[in-house]
Parts: sequence; C-alpha cells; structure tokens
Amino acid sequence: MNIRIVLNYVGHILRIEGLSMFPALLIALYKGEHASFLSFAVTIALLALLGTVAVRIKAGDKLIYSREGFAVVALSWISLSFFGAFPFYFSGEIPSFLDSFFETVSGFTTTGSSILTDVEAMPMSLLYWRSFTNWLGGMGVLVFMLAIVPMSKGDGSPLRIMRAESPGPAVEKLVPKLRYTARILYIIYISMTLIEIILLLCGGMPLFDSVLHSFGTAGTGGFSIKNASIGAYDSVYLQGVISVFMLLFGVNFNFYYLILIKEIRPAFKNAELRLYLSIVAVSVAAIAINTRSLFENTFEAFHHSLFQVSSIITTTGYATTDFDLWPQFSRMLLLALMIVGACAGSTGGGIKVARLLILIKAMRNSIQKMIHPRSVKLVKVNGVVVEKEVLAEINVYLTFYTITMLISLLGVSLDDFNLDTNISSVVSCLNNIGPGLGMVGPTGNFSQFSPLSKLVLSADMLIGRLEIFPMILLFAPSSWKRNI
Amino acid sequence: MNIRIVLNYVGHILRIEGLSMFPALLIALYKGEHASFLSFAVTIALLALLGTVAVRIKAGDKLIYSREGFAVVALSWISLSFFGAFPFYFSGEIPSFLDSFFETVSGFTTTGSSILTDVEAMPMSLLYWRSFTNWLGGMGVLVFMLAIVPMSKGDGSPLRIMRAESPGPAVEKLVPKLRYTARILYIIYISMTLIEIILLLCGGMPLFDSVLHSFGTAGTGGFSIKNASIGAYDSVYLQGVISVFMLLFGVNFNFYYLILIKEIRPAFKNAELRLYLSIVAVSVAAIAINTRSLFENTFEAFHHSLFQVSSIITTTGYATTDFDLWPQFSRMLLLALMIVGACAGSTGGGIKVARLLILIKAMRNSIQKMIHPRSVKLVKVNGVVVEKEVLAEINVYLTFYTITMLISLLGVSLDDFNLDTNISSVVSCLNNIGPGLGMVGPTGNFSQFSPLSKLVLSADMLIGRLEIFPMILLFAPSSWKRNI
Repeated sequence: MNIRIVLNYVGHILRIEGLSMFPALLIALYKGEHASFLSFAVTIALLALLGTVAVRIKAGDKLIYSREGFAVVALSWISLSFFGAFPFYFSGEIPSFLDSFFETVSGFTTTGSSILTDVEAMPMSLLYWRSFTNWLGGMGVLVFMLAIVPMSKGDGSPLRIMRAESPGPAVEKLVPKLRYTARILYIIYISMTLIEIILLLCGGMPLFDSVLHSFGTAGTGGFSIKNASIGAYDSVYLQGVISVFMLLFGVNFNFYYLILIKEIRPAFKNAELRLYLSIVAVSVAAIAINTRSLFENTFEAFHHSLFQVSSIITTTGYATTDFDLWPQFSRMLLLALMIVGACAGSTGGGIKVARLLILIKAMRNSIQKMIHPRSVKLVKVNGVVVEKEVLAEINVYLTFYTITMLISLLGVSLDDFNLDTNISSVVSCLNNIGPGLGMVGPTGNFSQFSPLSKLVLSADMLIGRLEIFPMILLFAPSSWKRNI
Repeated sequence: MNIRIVLNYVGHILRIEGLSMFPALLIALYKGEHASFLSFAVTIALLALLGTVAVRIKAGDKLIYSREGFAVVALSWISLSFFGAFPFYFSGEIPSFLDSFFETVSGFTTTGSSILTDVEAMPMSLLYWRSFTNWLGGMGVLVFMLAIVPMSKGDGSPLRIMRAESPGPAVEKLVPKLRYTARILYIIYISMTLIEIILLLCGGMPLFDSVLHSFGTAGTGGFSIKNASIGAYDSVYLQGVISVFMLLFGVNFNFYYLILIKEIRPAFKNAELRLYLSIVAVSVAAIAINTRSLFENTFEAFHHSLFQVSSIITTTGYATTDFDLWPQFSRMLLLALMIVGACAGSTGGGIKVARLLILIKAMRNSIQKMIHPRSVKLVKVNGVVVEKEVLAEINVYLTFYTITMLISLLGVSLDDFNLDTNISSVVSCLNNIGPGLGMVGPTGNFSQFSPLSKLVLSADMLIGRLEIFPMILLFAPSSWKRNI
C-alpha cells in the first residue's frame, strides 16, 4: 500500500470539504447564528490546515493500484463524515459526537436517516450543511475532485477511484478523458438540481426549502427540513414534482448524456431503464390498490403510492404519509424495493436494477443449460455479453451484502426493539434509504438506538454507499502488506 | 421430455407410498380406528392401481437426461404429497383437503409446520402416518426406490435423480454402484433411528412416542405428537438425547460411512463438519448468555439453548420452550440459523453449511484478487478445487432462493399478519424448519393462514426440500419442448 499517495488524495478531499462549508458559514453569518458560525469557521480552518499538510506529502511513485484506489475512497468517505460532523457537535446542536457522526454519515451516504427528534428546531446554517452533504454525496466527492483538481501526468489511473466510488456493476467513461466524464456528470447533476429548484419555487415553496429539498432529491438522500418531511407541503403539484425528480435522479446518468448528444433511441432502448420503470409501474399499481381504502379517492391513493414508491426505490426516503401504517403487503413491497434500489450510475443506492437484471438473465441462462446441457448461451444485456468476471463480482458482492446484513441485524437486535424496527433499520441504512418501519418509520427517528447500534448502522451506510469493497479492502490485513 | 419414463418412475413411487401406509393401516385395525382404517385401505388400493398402471407404461427409449431426472423428482414429490393427504382428508380428521395437503407436504419435506390446533386429538394411525412422512422424506423416497427397485440395464443414469433429490451442492456416490450407495445410506439411517428409539425408551418415553419422535428427529422433520412438542417430556435426559440426535442427523452421511469403514481421521477433518459444529457452539453460547435471566440456572439456559439451536440449524423444529418469547437477539439468531441450515448430504434443509463454506472461501479469494490482481488462486474445500460451475450453480441457487422468498413474502403478507409471522413463516417453510416466530411460533400453528398463503407455503416447502431446480424445471416451458 502506497500510503503517501492515499493521504495525498484524502488531503484534496478535506480541502474540498472545507470549501463546501463556506455557504453554510455565510448563512450563519447572515442569520446571526453565532455558535454555528464559530463552529463552521473552526472546522474550515482545521480542514484547510490538515488538507494542505496532506496534499504536500511527497508521494514518490504516483501509480495507483486497485488497493490504493479502494483505500482512497474508503478513507475519504470516513474522513468526510468525521470532519463533517464537527459543526453539529461544536455548535452544541447535536450534543453527542456519535450522533453528529451518524447524522453526517447519513448525509454523505445519501441515506437520510436522522437522529434528530425535531429537525425544525435546527439553525438554518446547519440545516443547509446537512442537506448539502446529501447533494455532495450523491454524485460523489471524489468524482467532484476528479472534475476540478488537476492531476499530474504520472497519476496512474484515477478511473479506479471513480469505479470504486460510483454505484453499479460496471462503470464506463462517457468520453475518453475521465476528467471530462466527471465534468459532464456534474454539469448534468447541477442542471437538473436547478430545474427542480425552479419548479418547486413555481409551486410556491420558499427558496430555502426548495434548494434544500432539491439537494435531498438530487442526491437521493432525503434529508428534509420539516418533521413531516414532504407531507408538510400539502400540494399535489409540489409532491408530484418531487416524485418525478426522485425517479429521474434514480436513472443512470448515461441516459441524460445520450439525450444530450441526441442519441434518443439508444437512450430509451436501455434494458435497465425499462426494468426500472416496469418495477415502478407495477409497484405503484399494486400499492395503490392495496391502500385504496385508506384514501379519499383513487387519485390520492395513486399519488401517495407513486411518491412512496419513487422515494423508496430511488433510496431517497422522503415521505408524504406514514407508510408504516399501510397494510402488510404494501409495507413488505416497500421493504423489497429498498433492497432493489435504483439504476446503476445514478445517485441512488440499493443493489441496483442493473445487478438484478444480470442475475435474472444469468438465472434464465442456467435453466436453459440444465434443460439442454449441450447448448452454449451467453448472458447478454443490451446486446453486450456480460463477462464472467462481472457476474462473479456481483455474486461476491451479494454474499458480502447478505453477511453484512445478518451481522448488523444481530448487532442491532441487542437493543431489543421489535423485528420491524431491527430489519428495516438495517435494510434502510445498508441501502441508503432513510426511514424504515416501526420505530424508524417516516414519523420516527434513529435517536433511541444504543451507541453500538448507531455505530453498526453508520458502518452499514458507508458499506452500502461504497458498495462494500472499498470498506472491506481498507480493513483487510493483506491490503497493508508490502507490495507484491 | 420423455413423459413415459417419467410416469414409469412416478408409478414406482406411488407403489412404495402405498406399501409404506401398511403399518398405519395395521395400527388403525388394532386400535379400532374405523374411519382411519377405511381411508388408509382406500388410499392404498388407489395407489396400487395407479402405480401399477404407470409402471406398465412402455417407455421405449429408457435414457434419462437432466430434464427427465428433475421432472421425476418434482412430480414424485408432488404426487406423494397429494395422495399422502388422502387418509387425513377421507377420515374427516382434517376437514379441508388443502389443509391435509399442507400437512402432508410439511411431512414429506421434513418441515414439520402444522395446521393442527390440537395434535393430541388425532387418531394414532394418522399420527403414525404423519410422523412416518417425516422419516421417509428425510433420506428421500427416490433414494429408497433406487435402493430397492431393480432397474433394467438401459435405465440411463439414475444418479441424476439422486442428485436432484439429495440436498447439497455436490452429491457423490459412496461406492461405485449407485444402488449400493443408496442401500448404505438407508442402513445407516435405519440404524441411527433404532438407536435413538432405544435411548428414548431407556429414558422412560412410551414406545409409540419414542418411535414417532425418532422418525421426526431422523428426518429432521419435527412433527411431534404432543401440543407442547418435546417440552411435554420434562426430562433433561430425553430432551438431551433428542438434542444430540438432531445434531447427528444434520451431519453429512458421508461422515458415518467414513466412520464405518474406519476412515476416522478424514471423517473428522471435514471442513463443513467443523464449520457446522463451530456455528452450533458459538450460537449455543450466545443464546445461553442472552437468555440466562429467563432460566433458573446457567445449566438450564445452556440446555434449552442447545436444544433450540440443534433443532433450528438442523431444520428439525422441535421445541422445549417458547423461543418466540426470547429476547430479540436470540430470536434473530435463530432466524439466521434457519437460513444456514444443516450439512449437505444430511437429512436437514436450509442453504446448507457446505454452500456457506464455499461462498466464504470464494469471497476471501476475490478480496485477495482485488488486492493483488495478478495472483491466481483457486477456491478449495478439503483440499479439493471447487469448480467454477459448482460456484456458479450455488449463486444461481441463491438468486432463485431470494426471489422465491421475496415473492412468497408478498403473497403471505396479503393476509395482513405481522412482519414476524410473515417473514418467519416463509423462512421456516422454505428452509423446512417447522415453527417460526409470532403467530407461527412454537406454541402457534399455520391454521389461520388464507388458502393462498397455504398454497404459497406448500410450494415453498417443496421448493426448499428439492433445492429449487426440480420444481422450476418442471414448470419451465422449454422443458416440455421437443427434444434437442
């Protein structure tokens, strides 16, 4: 492991984090939130100092191998969450550092699970920072770094870093130069966020609320500034806009790039997109029928069903109604959608529709092979053969995923809350959703968990966001052995 | 698909089922249970008739391919359960045919889930038949057929049938001749059952109870003839004997064969056996500590913990105490053990420890590959390389398994019972355990489910016992296309 180059990268990340706290600092100044202002100022100074020291470390051999790539990603995300928690803690708004850390991990990983019992009581500057972590974590901080920090020519392959941070089984560059790919992604991301802000403003949502809820939507994070989440805005238009934008941010960004370069037909012919939309359509219909009696009319049932399905499958976690009170079938379906997750290459979490698609195709393939052992068929997605390595990696990923889930469940269940709470809190955190069922339902929060559970769930959020491997490799002893 | 040869085999199976009802018929005669006697007599006559007709079908080409092998297994098990339900239904003891079918599927698949609210009210002949399905289903009816029915030389490869019926990722013949392998397995099985009966008799359990509970233990089925299950026998000795025998029947039968031929060292060096015993030891300790305060002394906590862990990991399902009332950690751990299951090549269900072992090794292997991409390492178990096809098959199996579980959960949740009941009933049936948590806990039963849920759970039991593929292939349209 070349620890120097890893620290180098983490240094850049810390400086970016410091920079991204400036708007919050200004809000604190403007609103006269003294404690928050001070805590942001101190944190920014600390980040600038540490970041600059780390960036200046002489790295020598600048080649990045897989293990360094994974270490950069894992360490960056842990550091971001650690230092990002300082303003909450220093300002005294979240008195426990573990709680501050949990909230920040939840923000950056775009989970949106909260330990706050009254979010409306928070100072505006901290609310801003909290929602901004959703936005920054959505597209990825390292992708942002690759887009703006000039790399020297000897910098090896930062593609490994992007692969490790970006969700999905196979990350492709949109254009040959990685830096331009990163920039295109961020341009699409910023533009879509702006469009959503404008549409929310048009519906009469205040500017601050519009910006912060758009951050939460874009990153599929789901931090709201209202205790009732989006249910606080009693407007079918506003809720409808957010429904649609959640779905849009759950789509692979390659789609928008193809639309931009006017490759409309290939954009829509994508098998993952079609499966994603089919799952949404079927789920919305099933839940609307199942919950029909709870609402005044069929339209309302469909409206809330669409909102909740969009929110859960994209792993955003906003709510317009307390779906924890819905019939068991709807609760179960939402729990299943939590695991499915959004499209690969989107800002959403979960296992990803692309993986599901490949698994289903591999499954069909092997049935055919059992029936006709002499036939040779390859697994294809969008006409391209899925290589055996990709399939094997998906399977290893799922094994890790399942084992992580089981261990976490055992850890969390020591708190002796009910099964609904235990299972859904772990599923929700590991898939970066936000709310779950039972105690952590849309009207509940994560504050009552023990410190152990909070640590376990924080780890789950990071493991889920980074899709397991960076976190595991960071802690695998052989990563730290001498280079071979 | 060569439907004639499939029917041929199923015919043999029906005749064996008819034969195996004779003891129950005699018990009914001896005890003067008229309704039961008549219903057994009618069922036996019907099975003899249908079986003989099917066996006489001219099969022509007698070669068996994979698809025929899977079809024989799936159809045999469905027919066994269908006709095996007749005595319950005809005698009027279980008034609904669906319930009778559920109970019989539960018996043959060695699940042990029951729709009976008062098992002690059943006639003895029906209790005998119910427990005997556990015993017959444990080692497999087709294995029994292979051991006793003489096959003509042109009979293709009955190994395919044995592979499809026997649990685990890779079934091996003990001796070159399949027929002798089947016989050795049954000799071991019968001997161990007899030893258990004798040990229970020594502890003062009545003969009828000893025989039936040994059937339930041997098949890891778990049908008891007491409403309080093994808790009805307030004897540490009796409960201890059953604890140990459950564990023994959860071990790969290759182990006993190796012991018999005095290959003691290789028998104990088996990696699966070691992992299985380690999981049991750790779980027993963890649960004993977690439930310590519920019992009078530490010995009692360990005693009940051992019994429940043995019962659940071997997928037997007997109970000495209501573990549904245990703390969440213990309940969660038992739920996890339900999925793990027993060793491959045992009579137990679940995913099997062997699969878990291979998955863990594959996982470690791929971590190493990520850290040192140029290294080439193979996955080995007991010093033997696990072929890629076996690994791929395990992954396909797990994908099916997960999808089956999710669809079943959605189906069962339409009944609107709580999450504990829904999840644990599906996990319990799919892994052939018996009891679950909540409504289907050790003191509950499956009677209140809707007909749809009972059908779903019956399918789960069959899918779980046959490890998915036979059932799927039976219903895959391309199995029925013309031969290629």
